[in-house]
Amino acid sequence: MEVEEIKKLLESKKYNVLKEELKKVNSADIPALLEDLDKEEVIKLFRILPKEQAGEAFSYMDPYMKEKLIQDLTDAELKNILDELFMDDTVDLIEEMPSNVVKKILRAVNKQDRKVINELLQYPEDSAGSIMTTEFVDLKETMTVEQALQRIRDIGIDSETIYNCYVLNSNRILLGTVNIKEILISKPTTIIKNLMATNIISINTTDDQEEVTKLFDKYDYFALPVVDNENRLVGIVTVDDAINVIQDEVSEDFEKMAAISPNEEGYFKTSVFKHAKNRILWLLILMLSATITGGIITKYEEAFATVPLLVAFIPMIMGTGGNCGSQSSTLIIRGLATDEIKLNDVFRALWKEFRVSVIVGIILAIVNAIRILILYKNSQLALVIGFTLIATVMLAKALGCLLPLLAKRFKLDPAIMASPLITTLVDIFSILVYFQIATAIMGL
Amino acid sequence: MEVEEIKKLLESKKYNVLKEELKKVNSADIPALLEDLDKEEVIKLFRILPKEQAGEAFSYMDPYMKEKLIQDLTDAELKNILDELFMDDTVDLIEEMPSNVVKKILRAVNKQDRKVINELLQYPEDSAGSIMTTEFVDLKETMTVEQALQRIRDIGIDSETIYNCYVLNSNRILLGTVNIKEILISKPTTIIKNLMATNIISINTTDDQEEVTKLFDKYDYFALPVVDNENRLVGIVTVDDAINVIQDEVSEDFEKMAAISPNEEGYFKTSVFKHAKNRILWLLILMLSATITGGIITKYEEAFATVPLLVAFIPMIMGTGGNCGSQSSTLIIRGLATDEIKLNDVFRALWKEFRVSVIVGIILAIVNAIRILILYKNSQLALVIGFTLIATVMLAKALGCLLPLLAKRFKLDPAIMASPLITTLVDIFSILVYFQIATAIMGL
Repeated sequence: MEVEEIKKLLESKKYNVLKEELKKVNSADIPALLEDLDKEEVIKLFRILPKEQAGEAFSYMDPYMKEKLIQDLTDAELKNILDELFMDDTVDLIEEMPSNVVKKILRAVNKQDRKVINELLQYPEDSAGSIMTTEFVDLKETMTVEQALQRIRDIGIDSETIYNCYVLNSNRILLGTVNIKEILISKPTTIIKNLMATNIISINTTDDQEEVTKLFDKYDYFALPVVDNENRLVGIVTVDDAINVIQDEVSEDFEKMAAISPNEEGYFKTSVFKHAKNRILWLLILMLSATITGGIITKYEEAFATVPLLVAFIPMIMGTGGNCGSQSSTLIIRGLATDEIKLNDVFRALWKEFRVSVIVGIILAIVNAIRILILYKNSQLALVIGFTLIATVMLAKALGCLLPLLAKRFKLDPAIMASPLITTLVDIFSILVYFQIATAIMGL
Repeated sequence: MEVEEIKKLLESKKYNVLKEELKKVNSADIPALLEDLDKEEVIKLFRILPKEQAGEAFSYMDPYMKEKLIQDLTDAELKNILDELFMDDTVDLIEEMPSNVVKKILRAVNKQDRKVINELLQYPEDSAGSIMTTEFVDLKETMTVEQALQRIRDIGIDSETIYNCYVLNSNRILLGTVNIKEILISKPTTIIKNLMATNIISINTTDDQEEVTKLFDKYDYFALPVVDNENRLVGIVTVDDAINVIQDEVSEDFEKMAAISPNEEGYFKTSVFKHAKNRILWLLILMLSATITGGIITKYEEAFATVPLLVAFIPMIMGTGGNCGSQSSTLIIRGLATDEIKLNDVFRALWKEFRVSVIVGIILAIVNAIRILILYKNSQLALVIGFTLIATVMLAKALGCLLPLLAKRFKLDPAIMASPLITTLVDIFSILVYFQIATAIMGL
């Protein structure tokens, strides 16, 4: 549906036509349409939407649009929307809004929900508890399939998913899971206990959300149960939320690996000053570290005064060292993120990188030696560059492998040990090695 | 369950105890247990597993383990496992296995399935068709809820998901979707046509799998319908497969961005020679480009013979330029991957990067000027470095912004325009600018 068409229908007050047209639009696509309407039109269109579609469309909006809309809605209208939202979306909303909007939201929420919201708000940021929702189908193990289906019909409409149902005892301890497929294809008299799977994969409320995404990646589930320390079921995380978490975590890793302070807002939504602020800190740290390399160079002034050609190879040696280091660190960081590499794999990884670096170093040294012999006919220089490259590659790959694992060991995010930091460190060592080898071989 | 325990139970032939113990293990965790058993034990344990668990466990194995196991299984055992696999897993299996194993697999598949497999094998790699499965629940719009439930019971057991059901006409054209929740909470006499949603989000068989993951990210679905060019429903992609695709695509992006040829095998599974091969190509390309920077430096031999201190600032200028460039390119590449930045945003992005680079450049220039004035009391040098930094940062951010967008424009993967390539390009320009400014201001 085109924005122009909507504007026309709103102007000519053809609200019923508009309502029918909007039914054909997916709720997730409504926010993009609203973006091009003016304030009056937005609220008019939003009032035309059926309750369910309005709630869904609202949950897909960005915080800025949500805030503006809430300020324009009456308390009753807001209440209707909040009724449609799942608890995790309501909690996210409250976390994103400024305090005056939060007050308006809490006014529109009923007492019982307010209690649940307060509990959910207390889970640490990025924990499983903070992304779970409390609307799920709970069954008893003594129920028959027929009773279970009735229970699903009774509470299913308010549940985020009915695909996985959870079997609890009277203390709300999780005994097993059963999925709707098994319930539907079983006889009405079958007892749930005989259907449920007891090899439950569950997460704790305080587990990191990254652990949650790893479980979704490993086990092909649509939802995972979240339990408290007493193994009582308190919520579920659905796979659609896990996908959003994966994308957020990946973006954060990309940013950290490019020496940017992580930022949850989108690229265009972030102001120029915020962008500059997110980038300047690491640039300053890395710039000052680079002056160490500069300091080393000044120590060898005499060497390059005698053989000025030595300076010409600095960019190539530093560049190759940096690239080799970031290749290794990227593979290790990614391996740690996907659980393919574990902390105690350190010697295995180091041994692998060592062998790779010998092969890569020798090939690079030979290619360079040929180039230097042809261009400068200087075999001493070919030797210097060759040895320097082999040493630099080996060192770069060892650092690229070790530093992310060390970070992990000390419970830091391995992603900060990525290209920029490793490049700067490798620079220092490679320049030192270069001039040491050069002065030794060339007798400077 | 511990491997030692399994070995003991196998040795003492307590197969029934073992079978009961294994029931408590999630199928996805079985392959890890098998890894530490020897060949004889693996096949023994696998024969103990119930049919369904054996099939599930098999689908979670890595290609190497699958191949070994298939060679040890009888044709009848293999047939049992293939019966348990969904069509997409069978097709993946055939694509991964060497030709002699493929022959054994095709022998165990019935005629009808073989036809479907051949069709699925013809979709291009990484297309929606290549990751979809053909087992889904299809309904007619004239069915009542009661008839629909019966249909689900009849074919649901073989469907990968019954959560989303698809309403087709007699030509198998997709008319709408209805989810099990709506069916269950509706009256038995309700007609499906009145329940189904017609604002369908579907994908074409030839769409790229990355597009599929974007749809899962945007619309919170558990499954997406895949249609052919005539809008006939031919399969579905489930969200668990989408998560695997997301992780694979992200790993590929990380590798490309670190100048590594993408590799689908895991870090430890890849041989040392393969690792070296994946890394050497880009290293050689980047190394040879770095010699251009070296060539420029030799042109200014006289300049640094007169002011040797100039050489000491080369690492800092090159490093800062590279870091600024990779900050920008990473943000743009990630924005393109998540659809937040579009091709026609090029001027908007460039304008943003321009303003960020002015702020960042000036701050870096000031910090350096202070450092130089204190350390060397040389205001000319402070000016040279300051101007060079500002120019380098602006250029680096412009290139970091433009090159990924250009790559996208020419249908190349933006990820290849990441840090290493941009760093090398920025190096060339920054050294050129540096010595131009130095010779101009210092009158060299």
